[in-house]
Amino acid sequence: MHLSPPAAQLAIAVESALTAELTSRRAEVAAIDVRLVADVDRLIAYIASGGKRLRPQFLGAGWLAATADPTLAVPGGVAKAAAALELIQACALIHDDIIDRSETRRGGPSLHRSVQKLHADSGWSGDAAHFGVGSALLIGDLALAWADDLFCAALVELGWSAEAFGAWRSMRTEVLAGQLLDLRIAADESADPQTAAADATVVNRYKTAAYTVERPLHLGAALGAAGPATIEALRRYGVAIGVAFQLRDDLLGVFGDPAVTGKPAGEDLIEGKRTVLLALARVALAAFPDQLADLDGAIGTALLPAQVERLTRLIADTPAPAAIETQITALLRDGLAALDAVDSQGVLLVAAAAAADLRVLALAATARQR
Amino acid sequence: MHLSPPAAQLAIAVESALTAELTSRRAEVAAIDVRLVADVDRLIAYIASGGKRLRPQFLGAGWLAATADPTLAVPGGVAKAAAALELIQACALIHDDIIDRSETRRGGPSLHRSVQKLHADSGWSGDAAHFGVGSALLIGDLALAWADDLFCAALVELGWSAEAFGAWRSMRTEVLAGQLLDLRIAADESADPQTAAADATVVNRYKTAAYTVERPLHLGAALGAAGPATIEALRRYGVAIGVAFQLRDDLLGVFGDPAVTGKPAGEDLIEGKRTVLLALARVALAAFPDQLADLDGAIGTALLPAQVERLTRLIADTPAPAAIETQITALLRDGLAALDAVDSQGVLLVAAAAAADLRVLALAATARQR
Repeated sequence: MHLSPPAAQLAIAVESALTAELTSRRAEVAAIDVRLVADVDRLIAYIASGGKRLRPQFLGAGWLAATADPTLAVPGGVAKAAAALELIQACALIHDDIIDRSETRRGGPSLHRSVQKLHADSGWSGDAAHFGVGSALLIGDLALAWADDLFCAALVELGWSAEAFGAWRSMRTEVLAGQLLDLRIAADESADPQTAAADATVVNRYKTAAYTVERPLHLGAALGAAGPATIEALRRYGVAIGVAFQLRDDLLGVFGDPAVTGKPAGEDLIEGKRTVLLALARVALAAFPDQLADLDGAIGTALLPAQVERLTRLIADTPAPAAIETQITALLRDGLAALDAVDSQGVLLVAAAAAADLRVLALAATARQR
Repeated sequence: MHLSPPAAQLAIAVESALTAELTSRRAEVAAIDVRLVADVDRLIAYIASGGKRLRPQFLGAGWLAATADPTLAVPGGVAKAAAALELIQACALIHDDIIDRSETRRGGPSLHRSVQKLHADSGWSGDAAHFGVGSALLIGDLALAWADDLFCAALVELGWSAEAFGAWRSMRTEVLAGQLLDLRIAADESADPQTAAADATVVNRYKTAAYTVERPLHLGAALGAAGPATIEALRRYGVAIGVAFQLRDDLLGVFGDPAVTGKPAGEDLIEGKRTVLLALARVALAAFPDQLADLDGAIGTALLPAQVERLTRLIADTPAPAAIETQITALLRDGLAALDAVDSQGVLLVAAAAAADLRVLALAATARQR
């Protein structure tokens, strides 16, 4: 993926900022009790182990969008704010894996499982699984608190921005609300597939689009002192591309090649994830009650590979996948169009270098293979 | 409990600040999805349902300590900062109850149990207990994020204080580190009772003293622009009184009257809490291997009332309770002495009205009945 020089510079600066922050936190925790260093090291390894750093990239593009001169060096405070997004993401993934009882993450065990293994291997007393969950919950809380500390320090360093603080406030509430709603609709799914599709869309809007694209862009733009029209154009792009990104993820969650995605085949079917894809498939199957009952009865259970294959084919044979592709195409078009917005003088609202990066990021986020 | 007029004024202002903040958050969440309002209302009821507002009281005393004029009205920003401490506390209790698998809190069901009941009563699909844990985890995360938002807003309102921000940073890391260490020593308790007592003391220092007394005082003093010597005196008081408070809690956790404490008899024995009291009892029983094995084997299991009574008597017959009382008395003396510190001109470092409040709070926190 080829991005602008400031984006490449920011990517390096974000890793440095993460390392600096976590190294200083490690020392702070070591001074409390040296046994806790292992917990911080576990978080450090977790953050280093992967992740595409999507949110920092969007924050960087937002900052660049407000900056006419693309040769300008990215300030350290912007890198810190972007690094704070990765700490939030660590908390979100760690807590999500507890909630979803996920065994794996980024090719290794999920954090609560890895702490559980430490407990079992060490021969400690009590319930190893519950120890893993408790420790991971608290390590996630630390990541959340440290994210706030780092973001506020960045804001102070750059000069306080009420706009950026407001975006930060909204982003954390939105992602947590999206997760709560996701849990709720999985437990209390609407019998009407159209309503279920609308519910899944609200989850995509807040759990993914706002958190992954819209608010990181908004934050970066606010840190670059962008005007309201530029912020509005970026947010329009962010909502469209963010939702499209999730729709692609939903397709990959059912039809993705495990060798490429690194996730088990049909993972979303096994987890019983309430996606728009699934809702549209259910709409299409409404006329075939036997097949609908088959799907509804199997989803969210421990499916054997042959069952996954059968359900995958059942969904593939509905118009749902093509409808999702159409939605992705339309959202991509809308999102990219927002980058061409101009002010009353005909000047581009999103600076050219940032718009170029955002086109690359939009295509990468919605590509059929990723 | 009779406190100064500013403390009484602050107590009212804290409730208003909590109400204002949560009302605005409720509207924000309602705009995302109206079904989530029930989750916010659950948090609101949880915060309203009790709690002694100890941390806001100490923050208020810290602010007053730096203020020569006790008739001064407490600024709104100070009330907001104090309210933020109650949001942190809500997160701490909600997450703690998940980790400890507690059934009850403040006389009602714990939050995850109450959400579990909603799931079961509503006939939703999936595992009700796991739904309760997942939702409560996220509601706790919301409280933590909102606490940060409110505290930062207060800091901006009052004028940014690097000292107060530093205390806030440290406090959250300290309480989470203390909780992680508490989990760890329960699973991997030292065979040597002296080491176990030292470990329990570190947990008391960070999980309770720093979080409940020392840092709230530090925060309040920093918001009042106190000098370093005043902050140091307050922190000395805070560590001593905070540890004494926890030691009293440990005694009540074994010997407390359920009618007064509102908790089951011998709750700490059933939960297997690793307290200094328990460690000292184990030191005393080292010469009586049968009784020690009896205690070690029973602690942390589902004890019947007769077993609780037997273990309670076993501990009562050691010198441990008297040793803890002696420690409490010494800590109380040290903490109160810190209030008498003077500068090189002989002027009290802690203003008189604040010192009077802190004497009342110290006695209340360590009293045999509370």
